Amino acid sequence: MAAAVANGVKKEQIRPNKCAVISVPTNPMVTPLLTDLYQFTMAYSYWKAGKHDERAVFDLYFRKNPFGGEYTIFAGLEECIKFIAHFKLTEDEIAFIRSSLPPTCEGAFYDYLRGINCSDVEIYSIPEGSVVFPKVPLMRIEGPIAVVQLLETAFVNLINYASLVTTNAARHRFVAGKSKLLLEFGLRRAQGPDGGISASKYCYMGGFDATSNVAAGKLFGIPLRGTHSHAFVSSFLSPDEITDKSLKHHDGSSVCKDFVSLVKTWLNKLKGSRILGGIFSETNQSELAAFTSYGLAFPGSFLALVDTYDVMRSGVPNFCAVALALNDLGYRAVGIRLDSGDLAYQSCEARKFFQTIEKEFGVSGFGKMSITASNDLNEETLDALNKQGHEVDSFGIGTHLVTCYAQPALGVVFKLVEINNQPRIKLSEDVTKVSIPCKKRCFRLYGKEGYPLVDIMAGENEPPPKVGERILCRHPFSESKRAYVVPQRVEELLKCFWPGSSDKKREDLPPLKEIRERCIKQLEQMRPDHMRKLNPTPYKVSVSAKLYDFIHFLWLNEAPVGELQ
Amino acid sequence: MAAAVANGVKKEQIRPNKCAVISVPTNPMVTPLLTDLYQFTMAYSYWKAGKHDERAVFDLYFRKNPFGGEYTIFAGLEECIKFIAHFKLTEDEIAFIRSSLPPTCEGAFYDYLRGINCSDVEIYSIPEGSVVFPKVPLMRIEGPIAVVQLLETAFVNLINYASLVTTNAARHRFVAGKSKLLLEFGLRRAQGPDGGISASKYCYMGGFDATSNVAAGKLFGIPLRGTHSHAFVSSFLSPDEITDKSLKHHDGSSVCKDFVSLVKTWLNKLKGSRILGGIFSETNQSELAAFTSYGLAFPGSFLALVDTYDVMRSGVPNFCAVALALNDLGYRAVGIRLDSGDLAYQSCEARKFFQTIEKEFGVSGFGKMSITASNDLNEETLDALNKQGHEVDSFGIGTHLVTCYAQPALGVVFKLVEINNQPRIKLSEDVTKVSIPCKKRCFRLYGKEGYPLVDIMAGENEPPPKVGERILCRHPFSESKRAYVVPQRVEELLKCFWPGSSDKKREDLPPLKEIRERCIKQLEQMRPDHMRKLNPTPYKVSVSAKLYDFIHFLWLNEAPVGELQ
Repeated sequence: MAAAVANGVKKEQIRPNKCAVISVPTNPMVTPLLTDLYQFTMAYSYWKAGKHDERAVFDLYFRKNPFGGEYTIFAGLEECIKFIAHFKLTEDEIAFIRSSLPPTCEGAFYDYLRGINCSDVEIYSIPEGSVVFPKVPLMRIEGPIAVVQLLETAFVNLINYASLVTTNAARHRFVAGKSKLLLEFGLRRAQGPDGGISASKYCYMGGFDATSNVAAGKLFGIPLRGTHSHAFVSSFLSPDEITDKSLKHHDGSSVCKDFVSLVKTWLNKLKGSRILGGIFSETNQSELAAFTSYGLAFPGSFLALVDTYDVMRSGVPNFCAVALALNDLGYRAVGIRLDSGDLAYQSCEARKFFQTIEKEFGVSGFGKMSITASNDLNEETLDALNKQGHEVDSFGIGTHLVTCYAQPALGVVFKLVEINNQPRIKLSEDVTKVSIPCKKRCFRLYGKEGYPLVDIMAGENEPPPKVGERILCRHPFSESKRAYVVPQRVEELLKCFWPGSSDKKREDLPPLKEIRERCIKQLEQMRPDHMRKLNPTPYKVSVSAKLYDFIHFLWLNEAPVGELQ
Repeated sequence: MAAAVANGVKKEQIRPNKCAVISVPTNPMVTPLLTDLYQFTMAYSYWKAGKHDERAVFDLYFRKNPFGGEYTIFAGLEECIKFIAHFKLTEDEIAFIRSSLPPTCEGAFYDYLRGINCSDVEIYSIPEGSVVFPKVPLMRIEGPIAVVQLLETAFVNLINYASLVTTNAARHRFVAGKSKLLLEFGLRRAQGPDGGISASKYCYMGGFDATSNVAAGKLFGIPLRGTHSHAFVSSFLSPDEITDKSLKHHDGSSVCKDFVSLVKTWLNKLKGSRILGGIFSETNQSELAAFTSYGLAFPGSFLALVDTYDVMRSGVPNFCAVALALNDLGYRAVGIRLDSGDLAYQSCEARKFFQTIEKEFGVSGFGKMSITASNDLNEETLDALNKQGHEVDSFGIGTHLVTCYAQPALGVVFKLVEINNQPRIKLSEDVTKVSIPCKKRCFRLYGKEGYPLVDIMAGENEPPPKVGERILCRHPFSESKRAYVVPQRVEELLKCFWPGSSDKKREDLPPLKEIRERCIKQLEQMRPDHMRKLNPTPYKVSVSAKLYDFIHFLWLNEAPVGELQ
């Protein structure tokens, strides 16, 4: 599971005294060169100033929840850890960097680059699949400043889209409800090959059930789904072209020698029905041939796309004829897929058609035939379908899901908060862009009803919040916003996922399925008003009283004093 | 250039009797499994029906130009050709497909899969970097139906984002104007690692000048740009920490032993200036230290990010002190970068500051110091900056550019238009979704003034349009929309990029730089009213009179007749 295999490449690295083996990044393009040039110009400049080994602490966080919501799912950690576990510049890469920097740069710098790895970097992180909030560090990265800066761009890249699309998937699941099957169909519309592969991974993490993407199925063990397209339907001309017409009974007891005729017989029976015969007359023969042929190929999992010509006048009757013929031979058809038009209306009409067959021809269970809907679905259309009423069991969602159409980027940032034990702050005229200084610990405080109440950040050496003890939680930038909390449970958020040269225990990277379960469980534990689509309540993020005071001391210290003229 | 090297993997395949070697896809994740499961279920179904080798023709096209515009740039062709040149399922991949299909599928199918490649597929395509329009096939793919379907998802994936982001880049260039330097800074916010790498490639193709993305620079030979971040600035505490203060004169003639003092001297001179001294008093010492240190590391290419604390009260004066000190030693600083606040206003204020220095201290050229602006720029903000008036020479654009924030997906589709010489049509209640049947040739007709007038699609065996001969161009679906055209030049759009087993000559895949030049030239040749931002005129796309009649004949033939009840 999740082993990186691409074009047969597979590398592994064992870290002695630490736990399990960490495989290479899923995408072989994730190398130390997957970064901005300025990380190398800065590295040179740090090195030239003799500052490259100064111990720096960076926080990785975002400033605003996406999609107008009040929560985000953190994802991408595993890929970051795989990246640093194998971080090493090759000679070829060093030669390229040399050619990209001015020739005046000293040669010894490249020897320095040659030697660097992440053995002296420490990474504390919130576990992947957690519900997270703005301003709270998702990851705290500590190490020699030049090395940590070389990780920035790749980390932000790996976290940004992963967290965004996982959150998008979770939001789609929330609107669709628990009982529906959610299928990710986005590969063709994704932003490039691993836009597609990552989308499949993270949509599954966020609560989808399956994907159409075969590569993602193989890489991550995600269940696969897929049947046929419109092209398949129109590639047939008529049932006469089907030569191999025989189909064995499901129990192997007998062989039907002319399945095509059996289908035609059923179609005529449907046409003869008082109720159903009024709905359609001649169905499309290409479509009938395609469905029959598909039924012959997959008698045990027959699912047909019914909108190539006309859903109710052709697709559904053709599907039912094949499904009933299969039923005669002991097979149970799966259902239909609708890919255009009014999905709510069509699903209800199709359901009635199925139910009529169940009643009129006594085919038990036929009324419960599965209906899948696809075609440009998103949170809004799912919501509208729910309001209108529909009979869809399963949604195939592509473009809007994987490209995060409603908001295609998350603003994850990577900010220096301490160097050589000196706290640092990044100021901005925009107060939401001011960074929270200091190496911090972060806690989630839970209330009596089991819901998380507030996240609190505190200086590393402050005593942690305690269960049953009152603690003051302050808004980091707004003087008047503060509240006392008596936590019923305290969860430390940042855990050690890469101990570097410290003797901390490294947290294991759980398999995707476990991360998915964590994500689903955490979402269920949230207070409902944070989760609702319309005007959700913001979850509170705070700092300790001590950290509050320090932030504002540092701020005043760094900001130039203006002069009104 | 453009050789795919990832984790040391490099494969090449020579096609005898054809021209140059085609390298593997840039992203090693582009394999035959990068597809939807239904391509394999269909392949099985075709194979089971004995239809898998039937000769099919598919068109790849899109239905609507993105970003509210009236043009699109076609990109992604080279990656598609690399993909098919190496299309071959491995044993491991076949085993995975086997495990993903029902166990009832016959074993001989996997032998069939084992044998397939693209030697019998023919691809005709519009050259990459061309200006293209809705409904006209960008690519025509012909071959055994099962094989061609296996290419669909990867092709659509590779073309969709590539064309979208190239178009986005071209639109940004159009608004920014020819004289500005455009830098792509999007890697960290892109949708995954190759969202970033592809963005860099295609933004360059669409008219950008450089990227910050080192991996893209190495893979594609794109010029690289980058200096330093806010973290660099705040990692310094004061100029006192700089130990190696010496800097050699540019001509090597002498060494300045205390560059830090020289910088401080200049800062005091600036403070003493009647005009400049009124703008600032004490500048931030971290920033001064960072700039000085960066100047010592890169004396020949000094460019500073000036908004960490306060642009005019700290960043610009600190920059100028270092730049003037460098100037004393024969170096010419490059300029500043602004990354927050009112970029138009700040750029004008900074320009005045530079010009005052040029005048007051007689430093020739100092007023022309380059000003780069970044921070959430997009088409709209560039347009607003232009209207307001600014002094920016160079724009660094990230998030909005690479994620195509204004429209993150292009709706490229892949439709069957012919099988066994039988034209096929895909109907839809939505007329814009009806496909144009038949294996077609496509032509661009140019008018007297050299502008393209109309694209016309015609059946493969129709006589092509001729220069000087009047031809009727019909809207494919609207009876009343038609026009006679006398072309002054006729350009056949679809060229052979993969001849398969035919004896056609294969077009070479040009280097990225040539594609970029083609793109820029084609955009310049468009009639200005198609290109304008506000209410652009749609470019006309038509079919021949004969094809028009055939489409409507086939349509009537396939559509079921309704019954009003």
